[in-house]
Amino acid sequence: MAPLAPGATIGILGGGQLGRMLALAAAELGFRCHIYVADGDAPACDVAAFTTRADYTDSAALARFAASASVVTTEFENVPAETAAVIARHIPVRPGALALAVCQDRLAEKDFAHRTGLATARHAPVDTEADLTTALATVGVPAILKTRRLGYDGKGQARIDRATDAPAAFAALGSVSCVLEARIAFSREISAIVARGSDGAVVAYEPAWNIHRNGILARSIVPAGVPEPLAKAALEGARRLADALDYVGVLSVEYFVAPGTDGAPSLLVNELAPRVHNSGHWTLDGAATSQFAQHIRAIAGWPLAPTTRHADIVMDNLIGADVSRWESLKGEPQARLHLYGKNEIRPGRKMGHVNWVYPLAGRPADEVLAAGSLA
Amino acid sequence: MAPLAPGATIGILGGGQLGRMLALAAAELGFRCHIYVADGDAPACDVAAFTTRADYTDSAALARFAASASVVTTEFENVPAETAAVIARHIPVRPGALALAVCQDRLAEKDFAHRTGLATARHAPVDTEADLTTALATVGVPAILKTRRLGYDGKGQARIDRATDAPAAFAALGSVSCVLEARIAFSREISAIVARGSDGAVVAYEPAWNIHRNGILARSIVPAGVPEPLAKAALEGARRLADALDYVGVLSVEYFVAPGTDGAPSLLVNELAPRVHNSGHWTLDGAATSQFAQHIRAIAGWPLAPTTRHADIVMDNLIGADVSRWESLKGEPQARLHLYGKNEIRPGRKMGHVNWVYPLAGRPADEVLAAGSLA
Repeated sequence: MAPLAPGATIGILGGGQLGRMLALAAAELGFRCHIYVADGDAPACDVAAFTTRADYTDSAALARFAASASVVTTEFENVPAETAAVIARHIPVRPGALALAVCQDRLAEKDFAHRTGLATARHAPVDTEADLTTALATVGVPAILKTRRLGYDGKGQARIDRATDAPAAFAALGSVSCVLEARIAFSREISAIVARGSDGAVVAYEPAWNIHRNGILARSIVPAGVPEPLAKAALEGARRLADALDYVGVLSVEYFVAPGTDGAPSLLVNELAPRVHNSGHWTLDGAATSQFAQHIRAIAGWPLAPTTRHADIVMDNLIGADVSRWESLKGEPQARLHLYGKNEIRPGRKMGHVNWVYPLAGRPADEVLAAGSLA
Repeated sequence: MAPLAPGATIGILGGGQLGRMLALAAAELGFRCHIYVADGDAPACDVAAFTTRADYTDSAALARFAASASVVTTEFENVPAETAAVIARHIPVRPGALALAVCQDRLAEKDFAHRTGLATARHAPVDTEADLTTALATVGVPAILKTRRLGYDGKGQARIDRATDAPAAFAALGSVSCVLEARIAFSREISAIVARGSDGAVVAYEPAWNIHRNGILARSIVPAGVPEPLAKAALEGARRLADALDYVGVLSVEYFVAPGTDGAPSLLVNELAPRVHNSGHWTLDGAATSQFAQHIRAIAGWPLAPTTRHADIVMDNLIGADVSRWESLKGEPQARLHLYGKNEIRPGRKMGHVNWVYPLAGRPADEVLAAGSLA
């Protein structure tokens, strides 16, 4: 595919905040966006030239969507494989089917990480209640039982403190295919965000330190405060995964930092996201190129752009009623507020985020104005 | 007016690139935009939730537009006074009627600058051919004859090298009301961009050095390379104008730097723009808060945000066929490309701009990735 010329239309499956921020970044480069959403409050539609509201299984709507665009990307990993396949008959879908298939399934994801030479927590598949015994023998307790598919923000997970808890937890998750994972006594969670271009080039952002609350990302901090060799290994792992997936776009890899067999800190892959990621929102205010612009460049077949960081950042999610904090945050000089334009506040819903910016260097013009004769 | 809550709708009169970049900035803060355009290719509409296409004299359409929004702003200074007045009967128009009236008329603008204590080039009004004699006696040659209204990008101007050229030049401009200005042997053109909040607070961006070609801004450079007292005076002048206009929003002031009576460099006000300005596009990639975000904050009644500069920037406009440079620029690591999504390329038309970014400090993540074992 030749590099997309400005004026071309980019299709985005999904209309949430990630789609919205992708659409804003695409507009900066002169692209139009076509948002395809199944239902509900879709804040991306407010900033896009075209919108389709139809089911993800509506092949006629999907064909029209594909005909209107030059490339299609996704803002959530749970796009049905068949949806992507229908579109891919017409135009490129980036990232592609392999990445979606791997990242939609927690077991496939872990197996893929292993094959790529990366470590994960001990884990075992659980398809039936009978599998629990074997899985518990392999993994031990404390453990965590997760549905293989459709989990996010702590949903589809149950903590297992004693082996006897396991059957009830499996039943509570709907007895669907699961994976039992050892619960890691990690010292820190970090994420590595890389972008891979259609030419195979890879750029990386410095890793972020991620702090979750109630299973939802609450805060990301850059720099992550881990030793440089560990940061480097996290980025290199993400690069290897991107290469192995023949990936095009932004790929996010979450890691646990935990003591290795020699006691030194080591990395365990927790999960992959085949898309821009909440832990990369700091790049909007702290990096030469945001993760959103980078993803658009990659899927458009453009060269990747610098990831240089010009500030230390603490990113806080505004979840549910947190969004009412806009009123005080708007007056905080270090706070860069990003609000998603969602109509309805619901508990656990990501409504916006704030980047607290601590520039590495800079010259405040207000000092010029305030100095000397203007006092 | 209480601070606008996220989710509110901001009306923008005009649908060009400035409206587009305002709409993108508004979306970041969770606002919706309603673009009102009279005709033509209006790239702002591609990134706005609502669009009205109607004449600026259509009072029913204007009333509906006003009813849909909480505040209205303008992306061009030549909004008819009656248009703004119709809207102002319903909701605030920011900046207000005084700023529009002053900035729409080159003579009123100069008179206002004088009353505010700022210097301009020698000038005189020319309403009829008979006025030329008096005006030439006051101003001398070389001079420049400009229509009082509706001039931009070098349009509505004629150079007068000899007094005998004047009658033909006046006729060529349509014999409309003009102002004759002394042509200044300036060493540099600079602009000062300030924002004034609804509480009267003012913040300023460092001045830019502006280079025009064929009457159109070709390049802006920050820092402007002028002595600090001059930079300070430029910002202070803009601040005084904003105060005198009881201004809300971003105000741009273009100055000539020319030898004063004592031979030292001094400032002459060239023109005001009651809006975000082309010479402030560097702020998108070099300042803590862009001029677009700052304008939205001001008109929304939010506190202003820091203007700290974190990079040296050279901004080049992409005019007409220059836009085809996207193909090489997309691979330049220092280049941040901004394309306006205009459908038709015309000579002299602003199609996009590129910010060449030279960070004051920063940490390239690629160095982390490239170092050591990953070589």
